Amino acid sequence: MSRVLHNFFRSSASVRVRAALNLKGLDYEHVSYTLRQGEHRSPAFLSLNPQGLVPALQLGDGTVLAQSLAIIEYLDEAYPEPALLPATPLDRAWIRSLAQAIACDIHPVNNLRVLQYLDEKLGIDEEGVARWFRHWVAEGFAPLERQLAADPRRGRFCHGDAPGLADICLFAQIANNRRFAVDMTPYPTLAAINAHCLESPAFVEALPENHPHAS
Amino acid sequence: MSRVLHNFFRSSASVRVRAALNLKGLDYEHVSYTLRQGEHRSPAFLSLNPQGLVPALQLGDGTVLAQSLAIIEYLDEAYPEPALLPATPLDRAWIRSLAQAIACDIHPVNNLRVLQYLDEKLGIDEEGVARWFRHWVAEGFAPLERQLAADPRRGRFCHGDAPGLADICLFAQIANNRRFAVDMTPYPTLAAINAHCLESPAFVEALPENHPHAS
Repeated sequence: MSRVLHNFFRSSASVRVRAALNLKGLDYEHVSYTLRQGEHRSPAFLSLNPQGLVPALQLGDGTVLAQSLAIIEYLDEAYPEPALLPATPLDRAWIRSLAQAIACDIHPVNNLRVLQYLDEKLGIDEEGVARWFRHWVAEGFAPLERQLAADPRRGRFCHGDAPGLADICLFAQIANNRRFAVDMTPYPTLAAINAHCLESPAFVEALPENHPHAS
Repeated sequence: MSRVLHNFFRSSASVRVRAALNLKGLDYEHVSYTLRQGEHRSPAFLSLNPQGLVPALQLGDGTVLAQSLAIIEYLDEAYPEPALLPATPLDRAWIRSLAQAIACDIHPVNNLRVLQYLDEKLGIDEEGVARWFRHWVAEGFAPLERQLAADPRRGRFCHGDAPGLADICLFAQIANNRRFAVDMTPYPTLAAINAHCLESPAFVEALPENHPHAS
């Protein structure tokens, strides 16, 4: 059985895992779920991933892994080259803290299901939802810009000249931001890292618009 | 210089790191920040942790680590015993996925700053904020209960009979839930794991009410 990525073309967490699989040079098939239609809540998918969230990675033996950062850490442990985390515990903590500043503090608050709750349950209008989205991006991106601009370990990417976990999260968030026209002018360092990601087919192929089931 | 944990007694992410430090038997001093008064946004704290979030762990050499999960992974790498993650990549992915189901999908959406935005910017009343909080806990806890109830690796804790990263996140979330009187009846497996945590001084001392600067 082949490796199968259960995912959605536009999901930011799905973009992360696609980029990681591509960077590792690992083959996978796609099964796609349309989140707005609730396909990730179907009994068939819930039997694979009870958390009912994409992405989920199904391995050749049928094992299903959930949560994008857990999946990427697994890939990095099981397929060490090229490494997506630095070698020393302190550098790893630094890169994980950048990744989590996005994956814990920006993305979950701006997830589709949260935006839907604002719209459907709280009656927040389109402009209010866009303001919410941009607020949490700015809350997270402003310190990331300051931290990365000042960090001597930064090269073309967050840590040196090879992409890793933090770049993957940053890239996916910037792709996600496009839906709400987030202005990147205040974040030149983040924009430069993203531009370096876009020079690599591993990242470009992970973009929503290049997904085989993009619609 | 001693190890210093910059934290807030009631912050769920601070509870996690306190429990991890206690489980590892590592000494630390507390510097406390009152979030409602914005003390974590002071220039002094921002110069230590530009992300302006607690907890942050300052090591003996002055290095500051941010993001609770990154800090705990660092502690587990730098002080391997007792281990907070299992040994194999697949088991580690499983435990990280449980931890992230809480730390990425429940807690950030229910963080103080998000609840304040609902109240102050969107005019949601107290009951609406409580409904929001309980909604995201239920969205996350229901699948966690099903997953853990069915998992053969579960013992007294999420993975076997020793506490680890997932238990730490679960314990901190359940402590956080008390402010909104979340009913634990639908989650007997999660409640049992929490009860086992409460038998250990490492966890009990990490509770908000046992913090030296609790108010």
